[in-house]
Amino acid sequence: MSDTRSGSGYVEGEFERDTDYIEDRITADGSSPWPVEPGRYRLIAARACPWANRSIIVRRLLGLESAISMGLAGPTHDERSWTFDLDPDGRDPVLGYERLQEAFLARDPEYSRGITVPAMVDVPSGQVVTNDFPQITLDFSTQWTAHHRAGAPDLYPEPLRDEMDEVMQRIYTEINNGVYRCGFSNDQKAYDKAYDRLFTALDWVSDRLADRRYLMGDTITEADVRLFTTLARFDAVYHGHFKCNRQKLTELPVLWAYARDLFQTPGFGDTIDFPQIKEHYYVVHADINPTQIIPQGPDTSVWLTPHGREELGGSPFGDGTPPGPVAADEEVPDDHGPGGIGHR
Amino acid sequence: MSDTRSGSGYVEGEFERDTDYIEDRITADGSSPWPVEPGRYRLIAARACPWANRSIIVRRLLGLESAISMGLAGPTHDERSWTFDLDPDGRDPVLGYERLQEAFLARDPEYSRGITVPAMVDVPSGQVVTNDFPQITLDFSTQWTAHHRAGAPDLYPEPLRDEMDEVMQRIYTEINNGVYRCGFSNDQKAYDKAYDRLFTALDWVSDRLADRRYLMGDTITEADVRLFTTLARFDAVYHGHFKCNRQKLTELPVLWAYARDLFQTPGFGDTIDFPQIKEHYYVVHADINPTQIIPQGPDTSVWLTPHGREELGGSPFGDGTPPGPVAADEEVPDDHGPGGIGHR
Repeated sequence: MSDTRSGSGYVEGEFERDTDYIEDRITADGSSPWPVEPGRYRLIAARACPWANRSIIVRRLLGLESAISMGLAGPTHDERSWTFDLDPDGRDPVLGYERLQEAFLARDPEYSRGITVPAMVDVPSGQVVTNDFPQITLDFSTQWTAHHRAGAPDLYPEPLRDEMDEVMQRIYTEINNGVYRCGFSNDQKAYDKAYDRLFTALDWVSDRLADRRYLMGDTITEADVRLFTTLARFDAVYHGHFKCNRQKLTELPVLWAYARDLFQTPGFGDTIDFPQIKEHYYVVHADINPTQIIPQGPDTSVWLTPHGREELGGSPFGDGTPPGPVAADEEVPDDHGPGGIGHR
Repeated sequence: MSDTRSGSGYVEGEFERDTDYIEDRITADGSSPWPVEPGRYRLIAARACPWANRSIIVRRLLGLESAISMGLAGPTHDERSWTFDLDPDGRDPVLGYERLQEAFLARDPEYSRGITVPAMVDVPSGQVVTNDFPQITLDFSTQWTAHHRAGAPDLYPEPLRDEMDEVMQRIYTEINNGVYRCGFSNDQKAYDKAYDRLFTALDWVSDRLADRRYLMGDTITEADVRLFTTLARFDAVYHGHFKCNRQKLTELPVLWAYARDLFQTPGFGDTIDFPQIKEHYYVVHADINPTQIIPQGPDTSVWLTPHGREELGGSPFGDGTPPGPVAADEEVPDDHGPGGIGHR
């Protein structure tokens, strides 16, 4: 998702996220014009963005790397949104675009809504198929099953879906979006309300996780992916930049142990690029950080300390297996994380 | 001291503090036009300001309340600097001023330098005698001795002065002013350098305090007062607002225990007003916090947790005694601190 907030707005000082997406789906049963087809679609993500980070994690957990290629936009952008400035010649090597905007305009020359990641792009036509981020990852789980790796986990198990949808909805409104509601508040009253909502919800997930290893029980699900991407950014960005500062994540014992447990699980921490995360928020939001100076802290080596959550039992991948090492061309550089996590 | 930074400037992106003060001294030996005389001078301070906080603490430790009255400016100010907006009719009840600026103009109608706290004002003439903050507290210790309370500590002991002056100088340039150097840096390179200097110095004092109770040994001195006022603001303001975020103070075990030890000592924590501190920085520095929203966190109740520093021995007041309870009209409201500290 973009943080340019194009189309997003304020109601009584409170930030409201623009959720007007291109909502086509890529399906396995012929119910949409976009069939599941390995090699046809390209996931455009950005390591900086928590909404896109979900798709990077799920793609890797499910082993969809060879079915769905991935392009990565750089951490910063202007009002025209994400660019491929990390690529050698400033162009995505598959789509040939300099800006993600080009894929949206290919789909609709009049397109005027948010240019957001993650986006699934149809490679032959260069058009965005969907940027509906919560659906993209669920469809990775439910529509792309024929192309999952052997041992891929079931991240959206049928019997749990009703409860999971409720848990994920609350995580979305209160936590994933709750940190933005704190940071983008226009007045003190809206901020104070947003802060209380956020920490009420963090206390709720903390209670839920006190005696179970993962949000839905003994194994990882999409709900954990969605909570993780916010927790991974909490101390690096949200605590200071968004004023979510009742405590640091490192001061919330249950959530900190839970977050480290996931971070140290293949598919999670190996997708996290702390320098890109910090650069994105501190540079793009010049309205709340006019100097655009990027803080040096916090120390990220603490993410690799023992978490002790094995004592709660459970098995991250259930009957499945963890993903193998990150492909060489998709590794986060060693010095962009606590070190060496991608090679585990 | 004011944070309006009038007269302060930048050299290659690095903040340089204006230290052009009115440097008259109030002396006991007739060496200056301003003799020590109980009831004649009024200390103008502000609880928000770390430089003024020193004078509030030292005045109380030495029991100078009846010899030197105190007026308190409110936490926020505009480009004309500190005002007496906390007083019932917006005027200091002794000087009759609405703005501290009036006392500077009474001294010099052409005065154009910083309007800063702490300032010592001659009540009969309404003129500022001095705003030279490091000298004000040392003179409380050395010139006002005839008016110290029974049991007052020696905060500037003769035999320690050479070493103390060195320690205090390093604390000033690297820590007291070091946090401002981080927060007011104009570019990334200046910030990065400032951050490294600050944490190098914090590691130095942490090492120094690992096996001794106070900076100069077994009893409290002015050096501790000077370090304390910065540490008290660290997590509330400097960590987030000034991007001093390698760790929170609460994550630096030696310094956190030392800071709590002092906080819980009469004369220290009972001068700290966390809401005023936060309001000052987050509202006055609109250039680095354009929304002027004041964070709700962090939780301040942790300041009253056990610190364990008694095990290092020492005695905060040496052969002396702690000051008694805070005078009723000088108490920090209970809900402005961790609760009840002023009544201990």
